[in-house]
Amino acid sequence: MSATSPLSVVDATALRDHLDGEYAHVRRRVRAKLVEHAGLLDEPAELSYHEHRRRVLELLRAVAASGDTGLGFPVEYGGGGDVGASVAAFETLAYGDLSLLVKAGVQFGLFGGAVLHLGTARHHEKYLRRLITAELLGCFAMTETGHGSNVQALRTTATYDHATREFVIDTPDEDARKDYIGNAGLHGRMAVVFAQLVVGGEPRGVHALLMSIRNADGNPVRGVRIEDCGPKLGLGGVDNGRLWFDGVRVPADALLDRYASIGEDGGYRSPIENPDRRFFTMLGTLVQGRVSVGGAALSASKLALTIAIRYGARRRQFGPPGAEHEVPVLDYLAHQRRLLPRLAKTYALHFAQGRLVSWLHEVFVASDAHDELDRRRLEAFAAGLKALSTWHATDTVQACREACGGAGYLSVNRFAALKADTDVFTTFEGDNTVLLQLVAKGMLTQYRDDFGRLDPLGLVRFVVGQAVETIVERTSAREIVERLRDAVPGGDDEAGLLDREYHLELLRWREEHVIGALARRLKRGVDAGDDPFEVFNSCQDHVLAAARVHVERLLLEDFDAGVRACADAPTAELLDTLCSLFALHTVELDRGWFQEHGRLSGERSKSITATVNELCRRLRPHAERLVDAFAIPEELLPPLVRG
Amino acid sequence: MSATSPLSVVDATALRDHLDGEYAHVRRRVRAKLVEHAGLLDEPAELSYHEHRRRVLELLRAVAASGDTGLGFPVEYGGGGDVGASVAAFETLAYGDLSLLVKAGVQFGLFGGAVLHLGTARHHEKYLRRLITAELLGCFAMTETGHGSNVQALRTTATYDHATREFVIDTPDEDARKDYIGNAGLHGRMAVVFAQLVVGGEPRGVHALLMSIRNADGNPVRGVRIEDCGPKLGLGGVDNGRLWFDGVRVPADALLDRYASIGEDGGYRSPIENPDRRFFTMLGTLVQGRVSVGGAALSASKLALTIAIRYGARRRQFGPPGAEHEVPVLDYLAHQRRLLPRLAKTYALHFAQGRLVSWLHEVFVASDAHDELDRRRLEAFAAGLKALSTWHATDTVQACREACGGAGYLSVNRFAALKADTDVFTTFEGDNTVLLQLVAKGMLTQYRDDFGRLDPLGLVRFVVGQAVETIVERTSAREIVERLRDAVPGGDDEAGLLDREYHLELLRWREEHVIGALARRLKRGVDAGDDPFEVFNSCQDHVLAAARVHVERLLLEDFDAGVRACADAPTAELLDTLCSLFALHTVELDRGWFQEHGRLSGERSKSITATVNELCRRLRPHAERLVDAFAIPEELLPPLVRG
Repeated sequence: MSATSPLSVVDATALRDHLDGEYAHVRRRVRAKLVEHAGLLDEPAELSYHEHRRRVLELLRAVAASGDTGLGFPVEYGGGGDVGASVAAFETLAYGDLSLLVKAGVQFGLFGGAVLHLGTARHHEKYLRRLITAELLGCFAMTETGHGSNVQALRTTATYDHATREFVIDTPDEDARKDYIGNAGLHGRMAVVFAQLVVGGEPRGVHALLMSIRNADGNPVRGVRIEDCGPKLGLGGVDNGRLWFDGVRVPADALLDRYASIGEDGGYRSPIENPDRRFFTMLGTLVQGRVSVGGAALSASKLALTIAIRYGARRRQFGPPGAEHEVPVLDYLAHQRRLLPRLAKTYALHFAQGRLVSWLHEVFVASDAHDELDRRRLEAFAAGLKALSTWHATDTVQACREACGGAGYLSVNRFAALKADTDVFTTFEGDNTVLLQLVAKGMLTQYRDDFGRLDPLGLVRFVVGQAVETIVERTSAREIVERLRDAVPGGDDEAGLLDREYHLELLRWREEHVIGALARRLKRGVDAGDDPFEVFNSCQDHVLAAARVHVERLLLEDFDAGVRACADAPTAELLDTLCSLFALHTVELDRGWFQEHGRLSGERSKSITATVNELCRRLRPHAERLVDAFAIPEELLPPLVRG
Repeated sequence: MSATSPLSVVDATALRDHLDGEYAHVRRRVRAKLVEHAGLLDEPAELSYHEHRRRVLELLRAVAASGDTGLGFPVEYGGGGDVGASVAAFETLAYGDLSLLVKAGVQFGLFGGAVLHLGTARHHEKYLRRLITAELLGCFAMTETGHGSNVQALRTTATYDHATREFVIDTPDEDARKDYIGNAGLHGRMAVVFAQLVVGGEPRGVHALLMSIRNADGNPVRGVRIEDCGPKLGLGGVDNGRLWFDGVRVPADALLDRYASIGEDGGYRSPIENPDRRFFTMLGTLVQGRVSVGGAALSASKLALTIAIRYGARRRQFGPPGAEHEVPVLDYLAHQRRLLPRLAKTYALHFAQGRLVSWLHEVFVASDAHDELDRRRLEAFAAGLKALSTWHATDTVQACREACGGAGYLSVNRFAALKADTDVFTTFEGDNTVLLQLVAKGMLTQYRDDFGRLDPLGLVRFVVGQAVETIVERTSAREIVERLRDAVPGGDDEAGLLDREYHLELLRWREEHVIGALARRLKRGVDAGDDPFEVFNSCQDHVLAAARVHVERLLLEDFDAGVRACADAPTAELLDTLCSLFALHTVELDRGWFQEHGRLSGERSKSITATVNELCRRLRPHAERLVDAFAIPEELLPPLVRG
């Protein structure tokens, strides 16, 4: 490809079909459904949050009636038996009111997912059908006021009383109240409650129990106290609430007993002996929630970019004097710089999300083998992609709002709700910072079949004990070779800069180097006898960087695979150019690091910035087509930018 | 100062007094008033925007009755004759409901400021008293739907009819309707309308006219159509509206005639001959609006940091196993990295804002000399500081929300309103991107007494014609000297890295280099005969960078001056450390550039990152005291973090 030749105009339909991928039929169906309900999916700024909640409940029931929310459940309970399709449907639903989406996520993903994955046949038989149709509404009561990220430290207790064959559920103190629980504020009748199980006086760690929190009349059951969390930054249509338990007795079969049960003798049994491993296995089954949130964030970025890029192509401001018209603001380099690299990263995330969803489907549906190593890798990828995708959404929605100026500030143009509703994505379903540490841990342990505790000390002890030596050795050797080969890059011509192998090599080299250096730092600290917590803490920025560069490398590989899988030549060339923009902009953002490590010369670094500018210029004429391919229904776009 | 010695605990009152500076009495008074109204200043999430608007109007009148909103107006009309005090009051008011602040800004800053600065005695006599007390509510009708940043391209017309000695105001097309006009949706009775003046058939450029838009009964006057802009992303308590004019006749003295008037003969007169210069002079008088918005953004950052840092010191999560308690999240390096560099920049902006306000006061009150050069420099500094301060607020409020996790998402904890209300600060009172171009233009022209058009072509022609040679010569010479001296930095010891002179030198060198290189690029392009618009556009990222590094250098100088002005030794040492964090974090963020230009070695660059971490660790124990010094009334803080 020549660096300066203009790109051919591509067929928007072919591009859309390529993006829609294997679940194109699901995406098309949900799009049509969104159009049907478009009148109820617009900006709810005129509604009080009480009215908004009512409307969302009504919509939830309408959507459930259509069957799309049950796609991920087994066919024998009225579901679709297709996990991949269910995530694709969820992603598409995210173009509408995100309160509806999150309420659906709580009901079918978290509540339904916990019953499905942590429960056994008796729970499935009894609840899944009514749950899938939204007849039975429920909550996922994990988080406590004092315990958000550190789930193992939850303090709600479930004490087994063998005399009555019941569990007694208690909230020991204010910090242990369940907090921010979706569906708990108003509508939830049942809840999956996470609590420290105590059997025969012995603590057994966090387990999940399915119990009623409200009677048929909507009042709390005896011993349960419920409080509405009140207004929030966004997601006004979701009724978050707080729960307290005071000696609430539930039958023994309330325990979701796939991974632990109470025997006839009142003794505790589990197929997984190691309590940490049991805990992480239980949590691991809930990975679909993270995959779904990452996908929803991606949809939010697509929506924001569709609005901002169309607006940028229409909005004119300033320009050469004497010219008949002012210039479309998207013709300005600074405007392109704001939007096009974010568009490129959105495409990268799209292809990575596609692979993640297929993998999820494979693990949970298509494959019978329960390969634990593969599951851990899936979980780590889901965690990393969720973090990068949700931060990208926050950043992109903001950039797009600013790019639309005053128009972006009016609620009718959708940024108000988009900003507010997606904001918490970086926090819920795992705080991003904590998730990246999980990813880094996975890298350090090389996904070995072992489960250290998530706490910092455990991490340090573990990696020093088992994984560091290998990493240090491997990366040191590789580094020396690379450094010799590339310390002085082989010329500053733009053609070389557009070589995909060069991009991949840069990001792979960075990843190896960052993880190797991190392992060495951790080892050095612990070998020197320093306090392991201090050792970990002094490297925490390095830990987060390791996770980030790892996920960025995966993004580039997935984008590249997406380009290569495209059969239509002009479309592939366009995608290839966009992929180069993603790669070089990623390198540009970290060019301080690349120079520090002798991997880029100053001149080469400057050339990369110049090439990013050039790629923006070259992609500008195709920007609208690239967002049109997201195929967001016109009815959901603000009138200002409709086609 | 030793790099590792712990800092002394300072007296929070001394620090507060140092920050409060010369307008301490005003700040104290407004704080007391905020406490008085605290019940009405909290999160309005439970209110409809209709109710919110009513409440804000009521509060506006209450605040006006106190006299603080008239501080900037002349004493003879019931004002306080103290521009500096009026901005200090405004900044402090920003700790409350920002809808009230913005409504006050529209009424007293924009509407009142236009009457004061663009009008003459007859306007002052007739309106200022009633305006200051909020008896007469007004709007500032500049922006049109199609013309936001490019004010010179406005299309509303004011055609002089000498027969009746009237102006006829018209909206020629939909793009020319006045849009997003604060106070126009409901409450404004009058408006300062910006329109293309046509006198004797000849266009005279944009001028301001003061006219009624509503009758006493609240209905639009004949020929004026008004529409409510409807719900917005934030600032729900401000009634923005749209205005159309259809042959509205206003008397000749509606023209705010300080810089242009109609003679008895019906001819146009102005003391400023050059129309561009006249236009920019008129606009320049409105600089207080930008200074005020920058100050309000700064207050928002202070509020967000106060909440997040106090929360981070109380919230515990994870920690060494076996330890009695989990660790306060602010003890984690990643959490410190999120909050402390932003705190340091907030302090830098605080001191810079203090200097800007004093300068504004000097130019508009204390000094009689109308030194145009000084005014242009003031305007450029106000533009640059507004851009950096408002972007900083958007970034900081977001980071603080995320740092508070789920708690940050509840409206009661104030981030909901803070995020939404400050969002548009980056757009209104001058879009930040456009403002930075204004700053860059000022740098290129070296503030020579000349006014090119703001459009890109004019900029390029102008700088090539007049200013570039000097810049190119000066920076080239200086660069060579510097490069010889510093290409290999004199050692990587931390002590050298904490040397303020070293920080200043780095930021000054960067500024000289960036502006010099920009001037060379522009000159090269134009010399080569390239299309000037393309020349400008291909450098636009460079133009914006030039402005940013210029303002960052000023921030460091102002912070440094603020440290040196502090008499109390332990307080000065704490501030000095915080200033080093600001300086080194600023360099760290741009370390790609510094390495590209041979100004930092890779090793030195890595040391800077390590030193930023070390400074965070050292400042951690003082973080709460550093936000306590902002002295935000406890009554305005969420219960969760009250003292």
